[in-house]
Amino acid sequence: MAKQVAVGIDLGGTNIKAGLVDSDGAILCDAHVRTQANRGPDHVLGRIAEAIGQVLRQRPDGAEVCGVGIGAPGKVSMDRTTVIKPPNFSDWDEVNLSKSLAHLVPGCVVVENDANCAGLGSATWGAGRDFDSFIMVTLGTGVGGAIIHEKKLFRGVTGGAGELGHMSIDYEGPYARSGVAGATEAYLGLHYLSHHARYQLHTRPSILHEWAGRDLARLSPKMLHQAAEQGDEPAREVLAWAGHKLGVALASVVNLLDIRKLVVGGGVSAAGHYLLDPARMALHGAVMPSLSEGLELVRETRGNEVGVLGAARLAFEDAESKIGA
Amino acid sequence: MAKQVAVGIDLGGTNIKAGLVDSDGAILCDAHVRTQANRGPDHVLGRIAEAIGQVLRQRPDGAEVCGVGIGAPGKVSMDRTTVIKPPNFSDWDEVNLSKSLAHLVPGCVVVENDANCAGLGSATWGAGRDFDSFIMVTLGTGVGGAIIHEKKLFRGVTGGAGELGHMSIDYEGPYARSGVAGATEAYLGLHYLSHHARYQLHTRPSILHEWAGRDLARLSPKMLHQAAEQGDEPAREVLAWAGHKLGVALASVVNLLDIRKLVVGGGVSAAGHYLLDPARMALHGAVMPSLSEGLELVRETRGNEVGVLGAARLAFEDAESKIGA
Repeated sequence: MAKQVAVGIDLGGTNIKAGLVDSDGAILCDAHVRTQANRGPDHVLGRIAEAIGQVLRQRPDGAEVCGVGIGAPGKVSMDRTTVIKPPNFSDWDEVNLSKSLAHLVPGCVVVENDANCAGLGSATWGAGRDFDSFIMVTLGTGVGGAIIHEKKLFRGVTGGAGELGHMSIDYEGPYARSGVAGATEAYLGLHYLSHHARYQLHTRPSILHEWAGRDLARLSPKMLHQAAEQGDEPAREVLAWAGHKLGVALASVVNLLDIRKLVVGGGVSAAGHYLLDPARMALHGAVMPSLSEGLELVRETRGNEVGVLGAARLAFEDAESKIGA
Repeated sequence: MAKQVAVGIDLGGTNIKAGLVDSDGAILCDAHVRTQANRGPDHVLGRIAEAIGQVLRQRPDGAEVCGVGIGAPGKVSMDRTTVIKPPNFSDWDEVNLSKSLAHLVPGCVVVENDANCAGLGSATWGAGRDFDSFIMVTLGTGVGGAIIHEKKLFRGVTGGAGELGHMSIDYEGPYARSGVAGATEAYLGLHYLSHHARYQLHTRPSILHEWAGRDLARLSPKMLHQAAEQGDEPAREVLAWAGHKLGVALASVVNLLDIRKLVVGGGVSAAGHYLLDPARMALHGAVMPSLSEGLELVRETRGNEVGVLGAARLAFEDAESKIGA
C-alpha cells in the first residue's frame, strides 16, 4: 500500500528548509536552499520550487505525496494561500503561494504563519503532543508564538493571533522594531538579547570576551549557554535576566487565556535550563493563584524540525478535510 | 402564543440583581436584593431564590420561562453548574447552584463567570452585537474581561479565561490583590484608582477636595468624571492616566489575539471620554501596525444591565441547545 507523505517547507529570510514527512512525523529526507529574499518574489518562488524538487527527487518508492505545507514569516491570509509583506523580503506585497506553486505537486499548497506551523508541529509530533491546549513560543531572531486550543490553532480574526513577541511587559520599557514599548521581543529577540549581554559584560571578566574575539557583537545564545555551562557568572546572569522576562510575559498569557501548558522552542531555547528555570520561577510568581494548578513550561523536543513538521501537518490536515468533505 | 423569557441573575458581593428578559433583550421586570455574602452559602442561596421569586411574581401573562442564568464572581466549573471560591463570600468552597436551585424554576439553572456574562450580554444585545469577535472589559471594583470569538465565549481550559485585570503591564509595577506585579487591576481597580487619585490630588487645588468633604478616600469615578466635566485639571489627569494604562493593556490583548474590537463597560467606564480617549491613543500607539486596521474601542451601550442580560442569554442558549439535541 502507498505510504502517505507530505512536503513541509520552512521559509525563512535566509534559508528554506524542506522535508518529506510521513504520517508518524518522521522526516524521510530533507533539503536546504538559500532564500535570497532580496531578489524578489519570483526568485524566491523559484527557490521554494527548487527545495520541493530536491525532496521529491529523494522520495522513497511507494511514497504518495498528499500536498505541500509552507510556514512563512509575517502575515498569512485567512484562506491560507497568500503571504503578506513578510519582513526582510524585498518587493513582496502579497504573493499567493498556493496558486503560484500548484503546478509543481499533486495535492494542494497550504500556507500558515511560521510560528503557527511550529505550534502545529509541536502539537502533533513534538513536546505539545500530550497537551490539548498550549502556548508555543519560538525564540529565534524574533519572538513568535502560537495558541493551540483544543488541538486547533487559534488564529484570531485575520490570522494574526499568537504574536507573543509584541505583548508588552513594561509600558515604559525599550522599544522593539514593531514600535511597541516593552515588547517581549525587545528583551528576548536575538539582537536585543545580544545587546543586553554586551552591555552587561562590558566591564566584567567573562570567558565570553575571549570567545567573541573581543567583539561582543558576535555573541550568540549558544555561546552564552556554553559559558554558563562552564560556570561563567555573567553569562548565567544574562540568561536568567532573559528567562525572567519570558516568564513574566507568559504569565500574562496564562492569566488571559487559562491555558497552562507552555512549550518553548527556537534557537535561543538552546540556552536550556539557564533560561527556562528563571522563566518558570517568574511564571509561577505572576500567574494568579487560581490558575496555577498544572502550570508547566517545557522545552520543545523536536528542535528546529518543528517548523517543517508543522508545515507538513498542514498539508495532511488539508488533504484529510477534503476526503472528509 | 407563549412568549419565551429567561431569568438573568447578576450575583454580586453586595447585591443580587435579577431581571426577566425576553428574546429581544428587553428587561420586562426586575428585582434587587441584598446578597449578605457574609452569612454563608445557604443564606445566599435563599437570597437568590428570593430574587428569582420576585421577578417571577411580576411576570406578564403568557410569559413562558425557559430557565435561569446566573453570573457569579470568581471561577465557575466548565459544566456551568458550580461557583468556586468567589472572593468576599464567606465559607464558600464549591457550591452547585444548578442543583441547589433546580426545584425553583422550570428549565435549567446555568452559571457563568460574571465578566463572561457581561461579554455575552454585550454580544447579544449590547455594544458588541455588531462584532463577531471582541474583547469585553468590565471596570468595576475589580477589572474583569471576556473574550468573544466568532460569537462564542472563549473559556480556556478550566473556564477561567478573560482575566484581563491580571495581565501585567509592568513587571516591576505595583502589586494587585492577586499578587501580580503591574496587573491592570493595580491601576484601574476601583480601590487602586482612588488611591492614585488621592495621591495626585494631595497637594493640588481641585474641586474634588470640597466634594469629598476633605476626605479623598471617598472619591468615586463618578466624582472624577463630574469634576473633569467642570474643567478640573487634576481630575482629567487622573482619568487620562488610568485610560493610558487601559489602552496599553488592551494593546497587548490585540497583539496576542488579533481581535480588534474592544467594548468597555462597568461603573468606572462612566468616566466616559476622559478615560476612553487616552485609552484609544495608547491602544493605537501600542498595537503593532499590521493589526491596527479596524481597531475600535467603544463604550458598552446597555450599562450595568449587561450582566443580567448575559445571564439570561445563557439560559436561552442552554434551552436552545436542548431543543437542537
